[in-house]
Amino acid sequence: MVPLTRQGIIDCDVHPTPKSIEEIRSYMKQPWKDRYSGSGRGFYGNPVHGARLDAKPPGGGPIGSDPDFVRQQLIEEYGEAYAILLPRAFCNLHPDPDFATAIAAAYNDWLADTWLGKYNHDGVFKGSITIAHQDPAAAAKEIERWAGHPHFVQVMTDSGARAPFGQRQYYPIYEACEKHGLPMAIHPGTDGMGINVQPSPGYPTHYIEWHTCLSLGFQAHLVSFLTEGVFEKYPGFRVVLVEGGVSWLPALMWRLDAEYKALRYEVPWLKKKPSEYLRDHVRLSSQPLERPDNDQHLLSMLEMMDAEHILMFASDYPHWDFDSPKLAFPKLPDALKQNIFYENAKQFYRL
Amino acid sequence: MVPLTRQGIIDCDVHPTPKSIEEIRSYMKQPWKDRYSGSGRGFYGNPVHGARLDAKPPGGGPIGSDPDFVRQQLIEEYGEAYAILLPRAFCNLHPDPDFATAIAAAYNDWLADTWLGKYNHDGVFKGSITIAHQDPAAAAKEIERWAGHPHFVQVMTDSGARAPFGQRQYYPIYEACEKHGLPMAIHPGTDGMGINVQPSPGYPTHYIEWHTCLSLGFQAHLVSFLTEGVFEKYPGFRVVLVEGGVSWLPALMWRLDAEYKALRYEVPWLKKKPSEYLRDHVRLSSQPLERPDNDQHLLSMLEMMDAEHILMFASDYPHWDFDSPKLAFPKLPDALKQNIFYENAKQFYRL
Repeated sequence: MVPLTRQGIIDCDVHPTPKSIEEIRSYMKQPWKDRYSGSGRGFYGNPVHGARLDAKPPGGGPIGSDPDFVRQQLIEEYGEAYAILLPRAFCNLHPDPDFATAIAAAYNDWLADTWLGKYNHDGVFKGSITIAHQDPAAAAKEIERWAGHPHFVQVMTDSGARAPFGQRQYYPIYEACEKHGLPMAIHPGTDGMGINVQPSPGYPTHYIEWHTCLSLGFQAHLVSFLTEGVFEKYPGFRVVLVEGGVSWLPALMWRLDAEYKALRYEVPWLKKKPSEYLRDHVRLSSQPLERPDNDQHLLSMLEMMDAEHILMFASDYPHWDFDSPKLAFPKLPDALKQNIFYENAKQFYRL
Repeated sequence: MVPLTRQGIIDCDVHPTPKSIEEIRSYMKQPWKDRYSGSGRGFYGNPVHGARLDAKPPGGGPIGSDPDFVRQQLIEEYGEAYAILLPRAFCNLHPDPDFATAIAAAYNDWLADTWLGKYNHDGVFKGSITIAHQDPAAAAKEIERWAGHPHFVQVMTDSGARAPFGQRQYYPIYEACEKHGLPMAIHPGTDGMGINVQPSPGYPTHYIEWHTCLSLGFQAHLVSFLTEGVFEKYPGFRVVLVEGGVSWLPALMWRLDAEYKALRYEVPWLKKKPSEYLRDHVRLSSQPLERPDNDQHLLSMLEMMDAEHILMFASDYPHWDFDSPKLAFPKLPDALKQNIFYENAKQFYRL
């Protein structure tokens, strides 16, 4: 029997823990029950499914972990000559730059040993050197470590950051990229997570909002590269914006070129209109390609953005918003199709 | 004569102040000398000039302060029927919500007494109710205070914020707007200043970068309104995006509609595609209108964005990037021109 008032010490901060997170989930209604993982993470995750359900390897293992099944479901299915691999290490959200650098290095060793090594008998796989941009000098060393490798064709970083990518703290990375002829790929992820700022006016509420706005962060990074004069300082440096959207490019360049006309006094290191740097220095990958109801609208947009020279096909296999090489685009003129699906990437990656 | 080592107290924190900031400026080279104002502020300001140099009133006073000169230089010059006035109180950057609310109220009293009062004999001026969105309940009261005034036709707030405008803390404002049939205008300013977050991946370096990226914050606010279901919750609520750019709209809506197709489970309150809410609830003002070299590209963009129904002309007088009614647009079909320059705003503001 519990006394009305117990005597003894009163402890004002004690933490009870459920034996399993299932205990808490059993008190929830849907859709929260399905979504709740119990960890502090789990927000800004796709609440439906993050990967193609049909991409589970028949031999077992996580989605996207079986190179031979990827050959079957992607490479052979669509006749792909090369697949540029971008592992997802998510190290750019980590506050400790040494830990982040160690994660990046481990991913690079793993990729070199496996997909770019023993699983690459046909040479179909080309890879990306993951870096932790939190420590640009260490990132430059990691690039040096892999420079000259026959299958690493680019450096990659998340779009999530604490400062726009045109700023000076990042320049050791660009110097190393330029020295070794490696482009830097920017890929969505870790935006607004860990140490990274959210590149919109405060935190989005839902995944659909966060994911839609990823393309805005890409635009800000591109404006930063262009206005800071990174491509004047490093004339051999090249950037590819992967999975950041496509059709926003004309509007952004029209706006920035107009600003430049009035404000070139502020950025005297630029030798030409910002948009004129794109063809020599910047590529966009195509997925997720916007598809308006009217195909002609997309074709106009591709013309306005000079897709013939700066767009490169990407599928985003095995993620949920995969773009099929057969279905993603409306019917394209042959030359444009050849450039987007092959020539632009062949030249850019020097394959 | 100064002794080698003085005896007495050693004080380790004393602040010397120049008699005038000119003393410090005299040690600077250009362009910093011209730009340095001595205050902590002054960044993200136009380093060339923020206003049209020819807009200085001949009778004296600051640019934009003489209603009769505005009549002469803008209203009569271009045959404007109405000018929607948006004073710049910048109260949305203030940490103290009471102070911010007091600033907003003072601007409203001033505008009602002057431009909407004794200077409005011809009724050409229509005004905006400035609010401090830091305190939504107080902002709603300020809207109530002016509801029914014959010349206030909208509520206005800066795009600078701590959270995207679709989020729930703002709803008292939207309820008041809906109740009184007043649209809410969002105007650039105070982004990344004071208490407001910078809506890009970290702080921009230059004004050209900050100013170009203003349009990205607008896009994030629009995505927030649409995904949060604000227009389902407040079916009479309407928004106008002023000076946030124009040509980005098709790409953003294509992207968001595609996301909605895959993720509508996450936002079940939406009854139709996000883009389908625009015609009933959202307008864009035209300035600064992007002007690509090829006029046909802009005309295509206007078609893609349904400019016929959702675009309204704005000049941004007397600011540096003023758009002339005569020069801003390429030649437009008559019906489109009539809608952009008159009908859309007449209906939206119920003039």
